[in-house]
Amino acid sequence: MSVETNVVLYDAETAAALDYAPDGILQHLKTGSYTFETGATLPEIVLGYETWGTLNADASNAVLIAHALTGDSHVARGASTEPGWWDGFVGPGKTVDTDKYFVVAANMVGGCSGSTGPASLDPDGVPWGSRFPFTTIKDSVRLEARLADELGIAAWHTVLGGSMGGARALEWAVEFPERVRNCVVVAASAESSAEQIAFAQAQTAAIKLDPEFAGGDYYANELIPSAGLGIARRIAHITYRTATELDVRFGRMPQGDELPVSSPGLDRGRYQVESYLDHQASKLVGRFDANSYLVLTEALMSHDIARGHESIEAALARLAEVNVLVAAVDSDRLYWPEQSERLAALLPNPCKVQYITSPIGHDGFLTDIEQLGDALGERVFVREPDIQADAG
Amino acid sequence: MSVETNVVLYDAETAAALDYAPDGILQHLKTGSYTFETGATLPEIVLGYETWGTLNADASNAVLIAHALTGDSHVARGASTEPGWWDGFVGPGKTVDTDKYFVVAANMVGGCSGSTGPASLDPDGVPWGSRFPFTTIKDSVRLEARLADELGIAAWHTVLGGSMGGARALEWAVEFPERVRNCVVVAASAESSAEQIAFAQAQTAAIKLDPEFAGGDYYANELIPSAGLGIARRIAHITYRTATELDVRFGRMPQGDELPVSSPGLDRGRYQVESYLDHQASKLVGRFDANSYLVLTEALMSHDIARGHESIEAALARLAEVNVLVAAVDSDRLYWPEQSERLAALLPNPCKVQYITSPIGHDGFLTDIEQLGDALGERVFVREPDIQADAG
Repeated sequence: MSVETNVVLYDAETAAALDYAPDGILQHLKTGSYTFETGATLPEIVLGYETWGTLNADASNAVLIAHALTGDSHVARGASTEPGWWDGFVGPGKTVDTDKYFVVAANMVGGCSGSTGPASLDPDGVPWGSRFPFTTIKDSVRLEARLADELGIAAWHTVLGGSMGGARALEWAVEFPERVRNCVVVAASAESSAEQIAFAQAQTAAIKLDPEFAGGDYYANELIPSAGLGIARRIAHITYRTATELDVRFGRMPQGDELPVSSPGLDRGRYQVESYLDHQASKLVGRFDANSYLVLTEALMSHDIARGHESIEAALARLAEVNVLVAAVDSDRLYWPEQSERLAALLPNPCKVQYITSPIGHDGFLTDIEQLGDALGERVFVREPDIQADAG
Repeated sequence: MSVETNVVLYDAETAAALDYAPDGILQHLKTGSYTFETGATLPEIVLGYETWGTLNADASNAVLIAHALTGDSHVARGASTEPGWWDGFVGPGKTVDTDKYFVVAANMVGGCSGSTGPASLDPDGVPWGSRFPFTTIKDSVRLEARLADELGIAAWHTVLGGSMGGARALEWAVEFPERVRNCVVVAASAESSAEQIAFAQAQTAAIKLDPEFAGGDYYANELIPSAGLGIARRIAHITYRTATELDVRFGRMPQGDELPVSSPGLDRGRYQVESYLDHQASKLVGRFDANSYLVLTEALMSHDIARGHESIEAALARLAEVNVLVAAVDSDRLYWPEQSERLAALLPNPCKVQYITSPIGHDGFLTDIEQLGDALGERVFVREPDIQADAG
């Protein structure tokens, strides 16, 4: 009998009332006081996280999956009613097989999906807002190390992530090489590039320009900076796709019966591609906090595994004992394949970059991750006796 | 004796007092009332324009140069004190030789450099602002046809432009094929693509989000929408360059002694690439009106030579007697070379695309236009007896 036939789906309320954690249900860990890389201290950081499967006796089967910029810990549906963002990739019998591995995903500090972030309350009950500290990828990793401690995981079998999650996976291996046996870095790089910084700057500027942003302290107000966050998302989303994909899907078609060129004023109808981006913007605004977008975008801009080391090469030299798999989307024009090639070449054990073939660009790391199944099966999730889960 | 040794430089005030037009000095033509493509009518459209050289007796040596989105009519210095934006390309003895050709450049309607635009006053002395009509490339061309009439130019020897100027050059040939003998389209396409529309949408949204935009009627206010226009420019400028160029020039270097990752808050120092884009934004804000940016960006989004025809092919079929030269920048990632190739292939007389080789992307049409010198010399500015200027 497969695990799936026995699965019970929980809504959030029911799950919260349980005294155990089913797969894919949000849990919280109080990690205590934390001093960020740039020096600020918060009295309490809570990490929201989810798990799937069972940790084996020697804790050798733990896999950490790191989400991307606006992702969250809900990688796979598990016992929850909500689909996960990598459902086809993570689950019983899937590439990341939750029958064998104990999978953990934590929400990034600074985010808005269960971990402490700008919308969280300070000890006086006031949202941190503009006072939330500058956060880095290293901060996220160091806090996740506390989660690993709590879960009894001395070393991860694998840390794995795409986009900003790839940056986190790599930073995990650099920060704690003795705690990472395999590291899978998809559509990410050793450091954010000038162009990535440039696109990010325009996005954060759009959020700050929104009059409802109120300097970051808008939580008590009636309105939130939806328009600014929406513009940020539009810019980002274009960079997540390719010109070709947008042209094939939308071209210059008008949206429904709207007329982009007919009104004598600027109140014209929209092109399909505008409506599509309006929809992307609106979806994000409905599920993501503008301050978190700002904080996490800044964290991504700050991504540089060389910080605190002499050079990228020196940082990567720490990975001599880590099995690293670097993957890229061939049409990615935000995290250029050249960046992945450079990372792979600079590793102490240089590796061949695995390619996801997709016409859609960066988002291929979400839509086509299963193309990495064979490579991961051969190089990472090999059938070792010691990684069989005890239960299952 | 070359023309340049006799040149007298004029400042704007002196030039305005003259009763003749030296090279490269802004002149104005009242074209009368005009009904825009989308139906709105303004009682008077003034076109600002400049000329270089002398029209010959049979008016066969007239060249129209069309500027790009935030360009203007000041293509070459001429007798003015200000350098032109194509000085190395247009002038006495240059590729576009003003000793032989009578060169004309008009500012686009809707702009802010001498032609009627949103900042111009209505008959009651109030700026048009939000009431300025939706403007298309076709409107610009139709008004320039009035200028050609006034100057006694029945047909242009050549219409030539890059980027949005390339769109105008092409639209000129489609709209008035009998008035264009040669058409040079650089780094432009037959229609704006989904991606170009998408990037443009984010830009116009940023301008409209600026609280100082005031719906477009900000001219009487103390503040203008600088921040919104600045974000628009940042987005646009990134698309005008390449990731490689930005990385080689700036990488992750901090600006001066600023510290991008050190402040515990979001008041951090900048990366060089941010400072560079701040500078680009600030320069544009100092010389360009936000409403004009909006109107002209909308015009570019509307670019589609097929509008009013059955198809792109049907529109281009009108160019059977026009000698068309299509050129692209090999690294352009806003006006993709594929778009130029498509245009060239769809012409009634398909042509080989001429390439500007540059690592910097779209802006290569400005910085490296002289690479087209040979192709233009061979295919457009051939030494025909009938195109010698009478004077000079």
